[in-house]
Amino acid sequence: MKKKILLTLAYDGTHYAGFQVQPDAPTVQAAVQDAIEQIYLCRPDVTGCSRTDAGVHARDYKLMFVTDDTMPKIPAERIPAALNTVLPRDIAVLFAEEVPMCFHVRHDVYEKEYEYIVWNSAVRDPFSADRAYLFRRPLDADALNAAGEAFVGTHGFRGFVAAGAVIAATVRTVRSVSVRREGKRVIFAIAADGFLYNMVRIFVGTMLAVAEGKIPAESLPDVIASRDRSRAGMTVPACGLYLNRVEFRRDAFDSDRKENTDCECR
Amino acid sequence: MKKKILLTLAYDGTHYAGFQVQPDAPTVQAAVQDAIEQIYLCRPDVTGCSRTDAGVHARDYKLMFVTDDTMPKIPAERIPAALNTVLPRDIAVLFAEEVPMCFHVRHDVYEKEYEYIVWNSAVRDPFSADRAYLFRRPLDADALNAAGEAFVGTHGFRGFVAAGAVIAATVRTVRSVSVRREGKRVIFAIAADGFLYNMVRIFVGTMLAVAEGKIPAESLPDVIASRDRSRAGMTVPACGLYLNRVEFRRDAFDSDRKENTDCECR
Repeated sequence: MKKKILLTLAYDGTHYAGFQVQPDAPTVQAAVQDAIEQIYLCRPDVTGCSRTDAGVHARDYKLMFVTDDTMPKIPAERIPAALNTVLPRDIAVLFAEEVPMCFHVRHDVYEKEYEYIVWNSAVRDPFSADRAYLFRRPLDADALNAAGEAFVGTHGFRGFVAAGAVIAATVRTVRSVSVRREGKRVIFAIAADGFLYNMVRIFVGTMLAVAEGKIPAESLPDVIASRDRSRAGMTVPACGLYLNRVEFRRDAFDSDRKENTDCECR
Repeated sequence: MKKKILLTLAYDGTHYAGFQVQPDAPTVQAAVQDAIEQIYLCRPDVTGCSRTDAGVHARDYKLMFVTDDTMPKIPAERIPAALNTVLPRDIAVLFAEEVPMCFHVRHDVYEKEYEYIVWNSAVRDPFSADRAYLFRRPLDADALNAAGEAFVGTHGFRGFVAAGAVIAATVRTVRSVSVRREGKRVIFAIAADGFLYNMVRIFVGTMLAVAEGKIPAESLPDVIASRDRSRAGMTVPACGLYLNRVEFRRDAFDSDRKENTDCECR
């Protein structure tokens, strides 16, 4: 009998060329497949909730794979410890659970949240190398928090996608934006039903342009509506970006739902 | 004219064989001397406030060196930026100031505080590899905080020094001990007028033995008084240890003080 297993991972993406398998480059996906192979003695496909870029981190990454009767039976609650013994130190399985075969780790996402950490100080932090972006000019987190409201809602984010990316549908619903200060860290959080390629990094670059006075806060609705990449800010480096939370649709874990047209098991 | 410069450093000690210069091993001291040489075009001796071990980190490390008229004149406020451009990413100069020639970065210390970070979870944290010690059994930080009181005061810490270390004087005054929880981190802080070799790591190992029921909390005064290394706990790994704060005597920065018998300038 087939069983679908959903893993929750955390990883430090510094030494990986992103999540998705690539030839001749270490990836999180390949590392997890290697670990599964060591434990299960076969190499099932694993499907992740998103393609994170090289250097991007995750505190709550979701990944699924399917086991069958030819594979060792490992109770879900024992899977994290088993995989963690063979995974590299910069990847950990936080949780494992069996989910209905209908469940899909990408199609059933209701909301994702990313955080972007800026180390806001004249002096770089030795502990934040590869884990935050150094921005020396003092930031007013409260002002940015207010400015960020412009992004909330359903918009076409054509102007917030990497130049050259071919994406048909650019409408996304941003459910919340917040900017807060924790000591010398300024943390940008953005939650949406989905994100375009580089959208969070361009969002943060645009917010930093607002902080520098290069883009007036009150023009942000126009910048978004213009759908013009050149009017938004720079793409900030990957090192500050964390996939922070992934939430699924309420009915994602119902084994008898009918309406899921994306279901792999039909 | 000679000038004494006091630097405040932070460093991630993961890739260093400790502070003090050693042949054939990267050290923080050698990295700082290399940076000074690039900026000042000569290589003065640098003296640090303590010898941290391989893998130990610092958020507030103090270091001094002396410049003279043959060297480029760099205003103190410009020294951090100058050195940070050439230092490796895991070391940063946070602050620089000119101090009286009488000042001594070791002899004038009033108090140092170390923090030790335990990642207290069944699952390791990818972001805490090399930066915290994984301890899976749940810790009661409040109970440990109360137990830690036994260390406060002036004691002979013979039992809390690395076996084999030859140290004549083992009396130290511990001014405060605290244990607190921040999420999955349990943070041990200990402040004293000075520390013996491995003293903080054995202190934490002893506190963890208390948590495990191997050493009764009420026997801690006896364990300390016994001056017997075998009655204390294990030496926990270096990766969780941070030199957190260094304070100098009130008169350390008086240029005309008379009573400093350790003064190098007399």
